[in-house]
Amino acid sequence: LSDRVGRLTVIGLGPGGDAGRTAEVVAVLAAATDLVGYSTYLDFVGVGEAPAATRHASDNREEADRSRFALDLAATGADVVVVSSGDPGVFAMAAAVMEQLDEAPDSAWAGVEVSVLPGVSAAQSAAARAGAPLGHDFCVISLSDNLKPWSIIEQRLDAAAGADFVIALYNPRSRARPEQFGVAVDVLRRHRSADTPVVLGRDIGRPAESVAVVPLGDLASPEGQERVDMRTVVIVGSSTTRRFTAPDGTSFTYTPRRYP
Amino acid sequence: LSDRVGRLTVIGLGPGGDAGRTAEVVAVLAAATDLVGYSTYLDFVGVGEAPAATRHASDNREEADRSRFALDLAATGADVVVVSSGDPGVFAMAAAVMEQLDEAPDSAWAGVEVSVLPGVSAAQSAAARAGAPLGHDFCVISLSDNLKPWSIIEQRLDAAAGADFVIALYNPRSRARPEQFGVAVDVLRRHRSADTPVVLGRDIGRPAESVAVVPLGDLASPEGQERVDMRTVVIVGSSTTRRFTAPDGTSFTYTPRRYP
Repeated sequence: LSDRVGRLTVIGLGPGGDAGRTAEVVAVLAAATDLVGYSTYLDFVGVGEAPAATRHASDNREEADRSRFALDLAATGADVVVVSSGDPGVFAMAAAVMEQLDEAPDSAWAGVEVSVLPGVSAAQSAAARAGAPLGHDFCVISLSDNLKPWSIIEQRLDAAAGADFVIALYNPRSRARPEQFGVAVDVLRRHRSADTPVVLGRDIGRPAESVAVVPLGDLASPEGQERVDMRTVVIVGSSTTRRFTAPDGTSFTYTPRRYP
Repeated sequence: LSDRVGRLTVIGLGPGGDAGRTAEVVAVLAAATDLVGYSTYLDFVGVGEAPAATRHASDNREEADRSRFALDLAATGADVVVVSSGDPGVFAMAAAVMEQLDEAPDSAWAGVEVSVLPGVSAAQSAAARAGAPLGHDFCVISLSDNLKPWSIIEQRLDAAAGADFVIALYNPRSRARPEQFGVAVDVLRRHRSADTPVVLGRDIGRPAESVAVVPLGDLASPEGQERVDMRTVVIVGSSTTRRFTAPDGTSFTYTPRRYP
Protein backbone atom coordinates (compact mmCIF):
# COMPACT_ATOMS: atom_id res chain seq x y z
CA LEU A 1 0.00 0.00 0.00
CA SER A 2 1.12 3.47 -0.83
CA ASP A 3 0.01 7.00 -0.06
CA ARG A 4 0.10 7.70 -3.77
CA VAL A 5 -3.26 8.19 -5.43
CA GLY A 6 -3.80 5.58 -8.10
CA ARG A 7 -5.43 5.91 -11.48
CA LEU A 8 -7.91 3.70 -13.27
CA THR A 9 -8.28 4.45 -16.99
CA VAL A 10 -10.77 2.50 -19.07
CA ILE A 11 -9.55 2.51 -22.66
CA GLY A 12 -10.71 1.38 -26.09
CA LEU A 13 -8.15 -0.25 -28.38
CA GLY A 14 -10.25 0.41 -31.46
CA PRO A 15 -10.74 -2.44 -33.89
CA GLY A 16 -7.72 -4.51 -32.94
CA GLY A 17 -4.33 -3.67 -34.41
CA ASP A 18 -2.26 -0.67 -33.36
CA ALA A 19 -3.23 1.29 -36.51
CA GLY A 20 -6.61 2.01 -34.92
CA ARG A 21 -5.35 3.25 -31.53
CA THR A 22 -5.62 6.90 -30.58
CA ALA A 23 -2.49 8.73 -29.42
CA GLU A 24 -3.90 9.23 -25.91
CA VAL A 25 -4.55 5.49 -25.56
CA VAL A 26 -1.01 4.71 -26.74
CA ALA A 27 0.36 7.09 -24.08
CA VAL A 28 -1.72 5.61 -21.27
CA LEU A 29 -0.69 2.05 -22.19
CA ALA A 30 2.99 3.08 -22.22
CA ALA A 31 2.72 4.43 -18.66
CA ALA A 32 0.58 1.63 -17.19
CA THR A 33 1.78 -0.46 -14.26
CA ASP A 34 -1.10 -2.93 -14.68
CA LEU A 35 -3.39 -4.04 -17.50
CA VAL A 36 -6.73 -5.62 -16.62
CA GLY A 37 -9.03 -7.20 -19.18
CA TYR A 38 -10.49 -10.11 -21.05
CA SER A 39 -7.54 -12.24 -22.18
CA THR A 40 -8.40 -11.95 -25.90
CA TYR A 41 -8.25 -8.17 -25.73
CA LEU A 42 -5.06 -8.08 -23.65
CA ASP A 43 -3.44 -10.16 -26.39
CA PHE A 44 -4.06 -7.27 -28.82
CA VAL A 45 -1.66 -5.13 -26.76
CA GLY A 46 1.91 -5.79 -27.86
CA VAL A 47 4.64 -6.21 -25.22
CA GLY A 48 6.31 -3.05 -26.50
CA GLU A 49 3.08 -1.06 -26.17
CA ALA A 50 2.91 -1.54 -22.39
CA PRO A 51 6.45 -2.51 -21.43
CA ALA A 52 6.14 -1.88 -17.68
CA ALA A 53 2.75 -3.46 -17.15
CA THR A 54 1.78 -6.58 -15.25
CA ARG A 55 -1.05 -8.27 -17.12
CA HIS A 56 -4.14 -9.53 -15.29
CA ALA A 57 -6.18 -11.52 -17.80
CA SER A 58 -9.63 -12.83 -17.03
CA ASP A 59 -12.40 -14.69 -18.80
CA ASN A 60 -15.19 -12.94 -20.60
CA ARG A 61 -18.40 -12.16 -18.68
CA GLU A 62 -16.60 -11.36 -15.43
CA GLU A 63 -17.01 -7.64 -15.78
CA ALA A 64 -18.13 -6.90 -12.21
CA ASP A 65 -15.30 -8.86 -10.56
CA ARG A 66 -12.81 -7.41 -13.01
CA SER A 67 -13.96 -3.87 -12.25
CA ARG A 68 -13.61 -4.35 -8.48
CA PHE A 69 -10.19 -5.96 -8.91
CA ALA A 70 -9.03 -3.01 -11.04
CA LEU A 71 -10.35 -0.45 -8.54
CA ASP A 72 -8.72 -2.30 -5.63
CA LEU A 73 -5.42 -2.33 -7.50
CA ALA A 74 -5.64 1.38 -8.33
CA ALA A 75 -6.37 2.09 -4.65
CA THR A 76 -2.87 0.78 -3.82
CA GLY A 77 -1.38 3.56 -5.96
CA ALA A 78 -1.08 1.63 -9.22
CA ASP A 79 -1.63 3.08 -12.69
CA VAL A 80 -4.26 0.62 -13.89
CA VAL A 81 -5.57 0.40 -17.45
CA VAL A 82 -8.77 -1.55 -18.07
CA VAL A 83 -8.64 -2.74 -21.68
CA SER A 84 -11.66 -3.00 -23.99
CA SER A 85 -11.65 -3.49 -27.72
CA GLY A 86 -13.61 -0.97 -29.82
CA ASP A 87 -15.06 1.75 -27.60
CA PRO A 88 -15.18 0.96 -23.86
CA GLY A 89 -18.31 3.11 -23.60
CA VAL A 90 -20.36 0.93 -25.98
CA PHE A 91 -21.57 -2.31 -24.33
CA ALA A 92 -18.25 -2.64 -22.55
CA MET A 93 -16.11 -1.99 -19.48
CA ALA A 94 -16.77 1.72 -18.88
CA ALA A 95 -20.34 1.06 -17.72
CA ALA A 96 -19.16 -1.99 -15.72
CA VAL A 97 -16.69 0.15 -13.74
CA MET A 98 -19.34 2.86 -13.23
CA GLU A 99 -21.77 0.25 -11.87
CA GLN A 100 -19.27 -0.82 -9.20
CA LEU A 101 -18.46 2.76 -8.22
CA ASP A 102 -22.16 3.55 -7.99
CA GLU A 103 -23.58 0.42 -6.37
CA ALA A 104 -20.87 -0.76 -4.02
CA PRO A 105 -18.32 1.97 -3.50
CA ASP A 106 -15.44 0.83 -1.34
CA SER A 107 -13.99 3.55 0.86
CA ALA A 108 -10.54 2.39 -0.25
CA TRP A 109 -11.42 3.64 -3.74
CA ALA A 110 -11.72 7.27 -2.61
CA GLY A 111 -9.02 9.24 -4.36
CA VAL A 112 -8.63 6.89 -7.31
CA GLU A 113 -8.76 8.99 -10.48
CA VAL A 114 -11.19 7.23 -12.80
CA SER A 115 -11.41 8.20 -16.45
CA VAL A 116 -12.55 6.80 -19.79
CA LEU A 117 -10.71 7.14 -23.12
CA PRO A 118 -12.88 6.32 -26.11
CA GLY A 119 -11.91 4.25 -29.15
CA VAL A 120 -13.30 3.58 -32.60
CA SER A 121 -16.22 1.19 -32.12
CA ALA A 122 -16.73 -2.07 -34.01
CA ALA A 123 -19.76 -0.60 -35.79
CA GLN A 124 -17.74 2.39 -37.01
CA SER A 125 -14.88 0.17 -38.22
CA ALA A 126 -17.25 -2.09 -40.15
CA ALA A 127 -19.11 0.91 -41.56
CA ALA A 128 -15.89 2.54 -42.81
CA ARG A 129 -14.81 -0.64 -44.60
CA ALA A 130 -18.19 -0.86 -46.34
CA GLY A 131 -18.51 2.85 -47.21
CA ALA A 132 -20.81 5.00 -45.08
CA PRO A 133 -23.90 3.06 -43.96
CA LEU A 134 -24.08 5.14 -40.73
CA GLY A 135 -24.23 8.42 -42.65
CA HIS A 136 -27.80 9.12 -41.50
CA ASP A 137 -29.73 8.58 -38.22
CA PHE A 138 -28.91 5.18 -36.68
CA CYS A 139 -29.38 2.95 -33.63
CA VAL A 140 -27.03 0.55 -31.90
CA ILE A 141 -28.63 -2.47 -30.23
CA SER A 142 -27.11 -5.50 -28.49
CA LEU A 143 -29.03 -8.70 -29.27
CA SER A 144 -27.69 -10.43 -26.16
CA ASP A 145 -30.42 -11.27 -23.66
CA ASN A 146 -27.96 -11.93 -20.83
CA LEU A 147 -28.68 -8.53 -19.30
CA LYS A 148 -32.13 -7.61 -20.63
CA PRO A 149 -35.33 -9.44 -21.53
CA TRP A 150 -35.69 -10.60 -25.14
CA SER A 151 -39.10 -8.89 -25.28
CA ILE A 152 -37.38 -5.50 -24.86
CA ILE A 153 -34.99 -6.34 -27.69
CA GLU A 154 -37.89 -7.16 -30.01
CA GLN A 155 -39.69 -3.93 -29.04
CA ARG A 156 -36.59 -1.88 -29.78
CA LEU A 157 -35.95 -3.58 -33.12
CA ASP A 158 -39.56 -2.95 -34.09
CA ALA A 159 -39.45 0.72 -33.02
CA ALA A 160 -36.09 1.40 -34.70
CA ALA A 161 -37.03 -0.34 -37.95
CA GLY A 162 -40.49 1.29 -37.97
CA ALA A 163 -38.89 4.75 -37.68
CA ASP A 164 -36.50 3.84 -40.53
CA PHE A 165 -33.23 4.04 -38.59
CA VAL A 166 -30.14 2.23 -39.82
CA ILE A 167 -29.55 -0.42 -37.13
CA ALA A 168 -26.18 -1.75 -35.95
CA LEU A 169 -26.49 -5.06 -34.09
CA TYR A 170 -23.87 -6.16 -31.53
CA ASN A 171 -23.61 -9.69 -30.13
CA PRO A 172 -25.96 -10.84 -32.89
CA ARG A 173 -25.86 -14.62 -32.63
CA SER A 174 -24.29 -16.95 -30.10
CA ARG A 175 -24.18 -20.72 -29.89
CA ALA A 176 -26.36 -20.55 -26.79
CA ARG A 177 -29.17 -18.73 -28.65
CA PRO A 178 -28.70 -19.35 -32.39
CA GLU A 179 -32.43 -19.03 -33.19
CA GLN A 180 -32.97 -15.51 -31.79
CA PHE A 181 -31.14 -13.86 -34.67
CA GLY A 182 -33.75 -15.30 -37.04
CA VAL A 183 -36.49 -13.81 -34.88
CA ALA A 184 -34.74 -10.44 -35.07
CA VAL A 185 -34.57 -10.72 -38.88
CA ASP A 186 -38.32 -11.48 -38.94
CA VAL A 187 -39.03 -8.31 -36.93
CA LEU A 188 -36.87 -6.23 -39.29
CA ARG A 189 -38.59 -7.75 -42.34
CA ARG A 190 -41.92 -6.29 -41.17
CA HIS A 191 -40.50 -2.88 -42.08
CA ARG A 192 -37.72 -3.52 -44.63
CA SER A 193 -37.65 -5.05 -48.09
CA ALA A 194 -35.73 -8.26 -48.80
CA ASP A 195 -33.16 -6.35 -50.86
CA THR A 196 -32.13 -4.00 -48.00
CA PRO A 197 -28.29 -4.02 -47.86
CA VAL A 198 -26.86 -5.57 -44.69
CA VAL A 199 -23.16 -5.21 -43.83
CA LEU A 200 -21.57 -8.17 -42.04
CA GLY A 201 -18.25 -7.06 -40.54
CA ARG A 202 -16.20 -9.73 -38.80
CA ASP A 203 -12.84 -9.33 -37.03
CA ILE A 204 -12.38 -5.87 -38.55
CA GLY A 205 -8.79 -4.63 -38.22
CA ARG A 206 -7.58 -8.13 -37.31
CA PRO A 207 -5.82 -10.67 -39.53
CA ALA A 208 -9.02 -12.67 -40.16
CA GLU A 209 -11.00 -9.56 -41.20
CA SER A 210 -13.95 -10.04 -43.54
CA VAL A 211 -16.63 -7.68 -44.78
CA ALA A 212 -19.64 -8.90 -46.74
CA VAL A 213 -22.77 -7.10 -47.88
CA VAL A 214 -25.85 -9.28 -48.33
CA PRO A 215 -29.54 -8.58 -48.95
CA LEU A 216 -31.65 -8.79 -45.79
CA GLY A 217 -33.69 -11.56 -47.41
CA ASP A 218 -30.64 -13.83 -47.40
CA LEU A 219 -30.59 -13.73 -43.59
CA ALA A 220 -34.06 -15.28 -43.37
CA SER A 221 -32.63 -18.75 -44.00
CA PRO A 222 -30.62 -20.89 -41.55
CA GLU A 223 -27.76 -20.98 -44.10
CA GLY A 224 -27.67 -17.18 -44.26
CA GLN A 225 -27.77 -16.95 -40.47
CA GLU A 226 -24.75 -19.25 -40.24
CA ARG A 227 -22.67 -16.37 -41.62
CA VAL A 228 -23.28 -14.40 -38.41
CA ASP A 229 -21.65 -15.06 -35.02
CA MET A 230 -20.57 -13.17 -31.89
CA ARG A 231 -17.54 -11.71 -33.68
CA THR A 232 -19.76 -10.15 -36.36
CA VAL A 233 -21.21 -6.66 -36.32
CA VAL A 234 -24.37 -6.50 -38.43
CA ILE A 235 -25.42 -3.15 -39.94
CA VAL A 236 -28.93 -3.26 -41.38
CA GLY A 237 -29.69 -0.48 -43.84
CA SER A 238 -32.67 1.86 -43.71
CA SER A 239 -35.08 2.18 -46.64
CA THR A 240 -32.67 4.64 -48.28
CA THR A 241 -29.38 2.73 -47.83
CA ARG A 242 -27.82 1.98 -51.22
CA ARG A 243 -25.16 -0.31 -52.63
CA PHE A 244 -23.33 0.63 -55.81
CA THR A 245 -20.13 -0.06 -57.71
CA ALA A 246 -17.73 2.87 -57.99
CA PRO A 247 -15.84 3.71 -61.21
CA ASP A 248 -12.77 1.91 -59.81
CA GLY A 249 -14.81 -1.32 -59.50
CA THR A 250 -15.13 -1.28 -55.69
CA SER A 251 -18.54 -1.90 -54.18
CA PHE A 252 -19.70 0.60 -51.54
CA THR A 253 -22.72 0.72 -49.25
CA TYR A 254 -23.90 4.05 -47.84
CA THR A 255 -26.90 5.88 -46.47
CA PRO A 256 -27.51 9.24 -48.16
CA ARG A 257 -27.54 12.29 -45.92
CA ARG A 258 -30.76 13.49 -47.52
CA TYR A 259 -34.08 11.83 -46.55
CA PRO A 260 -36.93 12.21 -49.03
CA LEU B 1 -2.15 15.05 -65.26
CA SER B 2 -0.33 11.86 -64.45
CA ASP B 3 -0.70 8.17 -65.26
CA ARG B 4 -0.42 7.50 -61.57
CA VAL B 5 -3.60 6.31 -59.88
CA GLY B 6 -4.63 8.74 -57.18
CA ARG B 7 -6.11 8.10 -53.76
CA LEU B 8 -8.94 9.75 -51.91
CA THR B 9 -9.07 8.95 -48.20
CA VAL B 10 -11.88 10.33 -46.05
CA ILE B 11 -10.59 10.58 -42.49
CA GLY B 12 -11.90 11.44 -39.04
CA LEU B 13 -9.70 13.58 -36.81
CA GLY B 14 -11.54 12.50 -33.68
CA PRO B 15 -12.57 15.19 -31.23
CA GLY B 16 -10.05 17.83 -32.25
CA GLY B 17 -6.53 17.75 -30.86
CA ASP B 18 -3.93 15.23 -31.95
CA ALA B 19 -4.39 13.11 -28.79
CA GLY B 20 -7.57 11.70 -30.30
CA ARG B 21 -6.15 10.75 -33.72
CA THR B 22 -5.68 7.11 -34.67
CA ALA B 23 -2.27 5.97 -35.89
CA GLU B 24 -3.61 5.19 -39.40
CA VAL B 25 -5.04 8.71 -39.70
CA VAL B 26 -1.71 10.21 -38.59
CA ALA B 27 0.08 8.16 -41.29
CA VAL B 28 -2.33 9.18 -44.06
CA LEU B 29 -2.04 12.87 -43.13
CA ALA B 30 1.78 12.62 -43.19
CA ALA B 31 1.71 11.24 -46.75
CA ALA B 32 -1.00 13.53 -48.16
CA THR B 33 -0.31 15.82 -51.12
CA ASP B 34 -3.63 17.65 -50.62
CA LEU B 35 -6.05 18.26 -47.77
CA VAL B 36 -9.66 19.11 -48.57
CA GLY B 37 -12.19 20.16 -45.96
CA TYR B 38 -14.18 22.72 -44.05
CA SER B 39 -11.72 25.43 -42.99
CA THR B 40 -12.41 24.98 -39.24
CA TYR B 41 -11.49 21.29 -39.42
CA LEU B 42 -8.39 21.87 -41.57
CA ASP B 43 -7.17 24.25 -38.86
CA PHE B 44 -7.14 21.30 -36.42
CA VAL B 45 -4.39 19.69 -38.54
CA GLY B 46 -1.01 21.06 -37.50
CA VAL B 47 1.52 22.05 -40.19
CA GLY B 48 3.83 19.31 -38.96
CA GLU B 49 1.08 16.70 -39.23
CA ALA B 50 0.73 17.13 -43.01
CA PRO B 51 3.98 18.81 -44.03
CA ALA B 52 3.72 18.14 -47.78
CA ALA B 53 0.07 18.97 -48.23
CA THR B 54 -1.56 21.82 -50.11
CA ARG B 55 -4.66 22.88 -48.17
CA HIS B 56 -7.96 23.46 -49.94
CA ALA B 57 -10.32 25.00 -47.40
CA SER B 58 -14.00 25.56 -48.09
CA ASP B 59 -17.04 26.80 -46.26
CA ASN B 60 -19.39 24.50 -44.41
CA ARG B 61 -22.41 23.11 -46.29
CA GLU B 62 -20.55 22.68 -49.57
CA GLU B 63 -20.16 18.94 -49.21
CA ALA B 64 -21.17 17.98 -52.77
CA ASP B 65 -18.87 20.49 -54.47
CA ARG B 66 -16.07 19.60 -52.06
CA SER B 67 -16.46 15.89 -52.81
CA ARG B 68 -16.29 16.40 -56.58
CA PHE B 69 -13.28 18.69 -56.21
CA ALA B 70 -11.48 16.06 -54.12
CA LEU B 71 -12.29 13.28 -56.60
CA ASP B 72 -11.13 15.41 -59.54
CA LEU B 73 -7.89 16.15 -57.72
CA ALA B 74 -7.31 12.47 -56.89
CA ALA B 75 -7.94 11.62 -60.56
CA THR B 76 -4.82 13.63 -61.47
CA GLY B 77 -2.74 11.23 -59.36
CA ALA B 78 -2.77 13.18 -56.11
CA ASP B 79 -2.94 11.66 -52.63
CA VAL B 80 -5.99 13.52 -51.36
CA VAL B 81 -7.26 13.46 -47.78
CA VAL B 82 -10.77 14.71 -47.08
CA VAL B 83 -10.82 15.90 -43.48
CA SER B 84 -13.79 15.52 -41.10
CA SER B 85 -13.79 16.00 -37.37
CA GLY B 86 -15.15 13.16 -35.26
CA ASP B 87 -16.07 10.19 -37.44
CA PRO B 88 -16.41 10.95 -41.18
CA GLY B 89 -19.03 8.18 -41.37
CA VAL B 90 -21.45 9.88 -38.95
CA PHE B 91 -23.35 12.79 -40.58
CA ALA B 92 -20.19 13.79 -42.42
CA MET B 93 -18.02 13.62 -45.52
CA ALA B 94 -17.91 9.85 -46.14
CA ALA B 95 -21.57 9.74 -47.22
CA ALA B 96 -21.10 12.97 -49.22
CA VAL B 97 -18.27 11.39 -51.25
CA MET B 98 -20.31 8.19 -51.72
CA GLU B 99 -23.25 10.23 -53.03
CA GLN B 100 -21.09 11.79 -55.74
CA LEU B 101 -19.57 8.46 -56.75
CA ASP B 102 -23.03 6.90 -56.92
CA GLU B 103 -25.11 9.67 -58.48
CA ALA B 104 -22.77 11.37 -60.89
CA PRO B 105 -19.69 9.27 -61.46
CA ASP B 106 -17.17 10.97 -63.69
CA SER B 107 -15.22 8.62 -65.94
CA ALA B 108 -12.05 10.44 -64.89
CA TRP B 109 -12.60 9.03 -61.38
CA ALA B 110 -12.12 5.43 -62.54
CA GLY B 111 -9.05 4.08 -60.84
CA VAL B 112 -9.10 6.46 -57.89
CA GLU B 113 -8.72 4.39 -54.72
CA VAL B 114 -11.42 5.60 -52.34
CA SER B 115 -11.38 4.61 -48.67
CA VAL B 116 -12.71 5.76 -45.30
CA LEU B 117 -10.76 5.82 -42.03
CA PRO B 118 -12.99 6.18 -38.98
CA GLY B 119 -12.41 8.39 -35.95
CA VAL B 120 -13.85 8.78 -32.48
CA SER B 121 -17.21 10.51 -32.91
CA ALA B 122 -18.34 13.59 -30.99
CA ALA B 123 -20.96 11.52 -29.16
CA GLN B 124 -18.34 9.03 -27.97
CA SER B 125 -15.99 11.80 -26.82
CA ALA B 126 -18.72 13.53 -24.84
CA ALA B 127 -19.88 10.19 -23.40
CA ALA B 128 -16.38 9.28 -22.22
CA ARG B 129 -15.95 12.62 -20.45
CA ALA B 130 -19.27 12.13 -18.63
CA GLY B 131 -18.78 8.44 -17.75
CA ALA B 132 -20.63 5.85 -19.85
CA PRO B 133 -24.07 7.10 -20.90
CA LEU B 134 -23.90 5.04 -24.13
CA GLY B 135 -23.32 1.78 -22.22
CA HIS B 136 -26.68 0.35 -23.29
CA ASP B 137 -28.75 0.49 -26.53
CA PHE B 138 -28.69 3.97 -28.06
CA CYS B 139 -29.68 6.05 -31.11
CA VAL B 140 -27.92 8.89 -32.88
CA ILE B 141 -30.15 11.51 -34.52
CA SER B 142 -29.34 14.78 -36.27
CA LEU B 143 -31.86 17.51 -35.44
CA SER B 144 -30.97 19.48 -38.58
CA ASP B 145 -33.87 19.71 -41.02
CA ASN B 146 -31.67 20.87 -43.90
CA LEU B 147 -31.69 17.39 -45.43
CA LYS B 148 -34.85 15.78 -44.03
CA PRO B 149 -38.34 16.91 -43.05
CA TRP B 150 -38.85 17.97 -39.44
CA SER B 151 -41.83 15.59 -39.23
CA ILE B 152 -39.44 12.63 -39.70
CA ILE B 153 -37.23 13.96 -36.91
CA GLU B 154 -40.19 14.15 -34.53
CA GLN B 155 -41.29 10.63 -35.47
CA ARG B 156 -37.82 9.26 -34.80
CA LEU B 157 -37.48 11.08 -31.47
CA ASP B 158 -40.85 9.70 -30.42
CA ALA B 159 -40.01 6.14 -31.51
CA ALA B 160 -36.55 6.18 -29.90
CA ALA B 161 -37.75 7.69 -26.62
CA GLY B 162 -40.79 5.37 -26.54
CA ALA B 163 -38.53 2.32 -26.87
CA ASP B 164 -36.29 3.71 -24.08
CA PHE B 165 -33.10 4.20 -26.07
CA VAL B 166 -30.44 6.61 -24.90
CA ILE B 167 -30.47 9.32 -27.59
CA ALA B 168 -27.48 11.32 -28.85
CA LEU B 169 -28.50 14.49 -30.69
CA TYR B 170 -26.24 16.10 -33.29
CA ASN B 171 -26.74 19.63 -34.70
CA PRO B 172 -29.22 20.24 -31.88
CA ARG B 173 -29.91 23.95 -32.13
CA SER B 174 -28.91 26.58 -34.69
CA ARG B 175 -29.62 30.30 -34.87
CA ALA B 176 -31.75 29.67 -37.96
CA ARG B 177 -34.10 27.32 -36.04
CA PRO B 178 -33.70 28.03 -32.30
CA GLU B 179 -37.26 26.92 -31.45
CA GLN B 180 -37.09 23.36 -32.84
CA PHE B 181 -34.89 22.13 -29.98
CA GLY B 182 -37.68 23.01 -27.57
CA VAL B 183 -40.11 20.98 -29.67
CA ALA B 184 -37.68 18.04 -29.51
CA VAL B 185 -37.50 18.35 -25.72
CA ASP B 186 -41.32 18.32 -25.57
CA VAL B 187 -41.40 15.06 -27.58
CA LEU B 188 -38.80 13.48 -25.27
CA ARG B 189 -40.74 14.63 -22.20
CA ARG B 190 -43.72 12.48 -23.29
CA HIS B 191 -41.59 9.45 -22.42
CA ARG B 192 -38.95 10.68 -19.94
CA SER B 193 -39.13 12.19 -16.48
CA ALA B 194 -37.91 15.72 -15.80
CA ASP B 195 -34.95 14.39 -13.80
CA THR B 196 -33.51 12.31 -16.67
CA PRO B 197 -29.77 13.13 -16.89
CA VAL B 198 -28.75 14.93 -20.09
CA VAL B 199 -25.08 15.35 -21.02
CA LEU B 200 -24.19 18.57 -22.83
CA GLY B 201 -20.74 18.17 -24.39
CA ARG B 202 -19.32 21.20 -26.18
CA ASP B 203 -16.00 21.51 -28.03
CA ILE B 204 -14.77 18.24 -26.52
CA GLY B 205 -11.01 17.75 -26.93
CA ARG B 206 -10.58 21.42 -27.85
CA PRO B 207 -9.36 24.31 -25.67
CA ALA B 208 -12.90 25.59 -24.98
CA GLU B 209 -14.15 22.13 -23.89
CA SER B 210 -17.08 21.99 -21.49
CA VAL B 211 -19.19 19.13 -20.19
CA ALA B 212 -22.35 19.69 -18.17
CA VAL B 213 -25.01 17.29 -16.97
CA VAL B 214 -28.47 18.78 -16.46
CA PRO B 215 -31.92 17.34 -15.77
CA LEU B 216 -34.09 17.09 -18.89
CA GLY B 217 -36.64 19.37 -17.22
CA ASP B 218 -34.12 22.23 -17.27
CA LEU B 219 -34.13 22.14 -21.07
CA ALA B 220 -37.86 22.94 -21.23
CA SER B 221 -37.18 26.64 -20.62
CA PRO B 222 -35.70 29.14 -23.10
CA GLU B 223 -32.89 29.82 -20.61
CA GLY B 224 -32.00 26.12 -20.48
CA GLN B 225 -32.12 25.86 -24.26
CA GLU B 226 -29.66 28.75 -24.54
CA ARG B 227 -27.00 26.37 -23.21
CA VAL B 228 -27.24 24.31 -26.41
CA ASP B 229 -25.83 25.28 -29.84
CA MET B 230 -24.47 23.64 -33.00
CA ARG B 231 -21.15 22.84 -31.30
CA THR B 232 -22.93 20.88 -28.55
CA VAL B 233 -23.63 17.15 -28.57
CA VAL B 234 -26.64 16.35 -26.38
CA ILE B 235 -26.94 12.85 -24.86
CA VAL B 236 -30.36 12.24 -23.35
CA GLY B 237 -30.46 9.36 -20.89
CA SER B 238 -32.91 6.45 -20.96
CA SER B 239 -35.14 5.63 -17.99
CA THR B 240 -32.21 3.74 -16.40
CA THR B 241 -29.41 6.30 -16.92
CA ARG B 242 -27.99 7.37 -13.57
CA ARG B 243 -25.83 10.17 -12.21
CA PHE B 244 -23.77 9.65 -9.06
CA THR B 245 -20.74 10.97 -7.23
CA ALA B 246 -17.78 8.60 -7.02
CA PRO B 247 -15.68 8.17 -3.84
CA ASP B 248 -13.09 10.57 -5.29
CA GLY B 249 -15.75 13.30 -5.58
CA THR B 250 -16.14 13.19 -9.35
CA SER B 251 -19.64 13.10 -10.79
CA PHE B 252 -20.32 10.40 -13.41
CA THR B 253 -23.31 9.66 -15.64
CA TYR B 254 -23.80 6.15 -17.02
CA THR B 255 -26.38 3.73 -18.34
CA PRO B 256 -26.23 0.32 -16.64
CA ARG B 257 -25.67 -2.68 -18.89
CA ARG B 258 -28.55 -4.51 -17.23
CA TYR B 259 -32.14 -3.59 -18.13
CA PRO B 260 -34.82 -4.55 -15.60
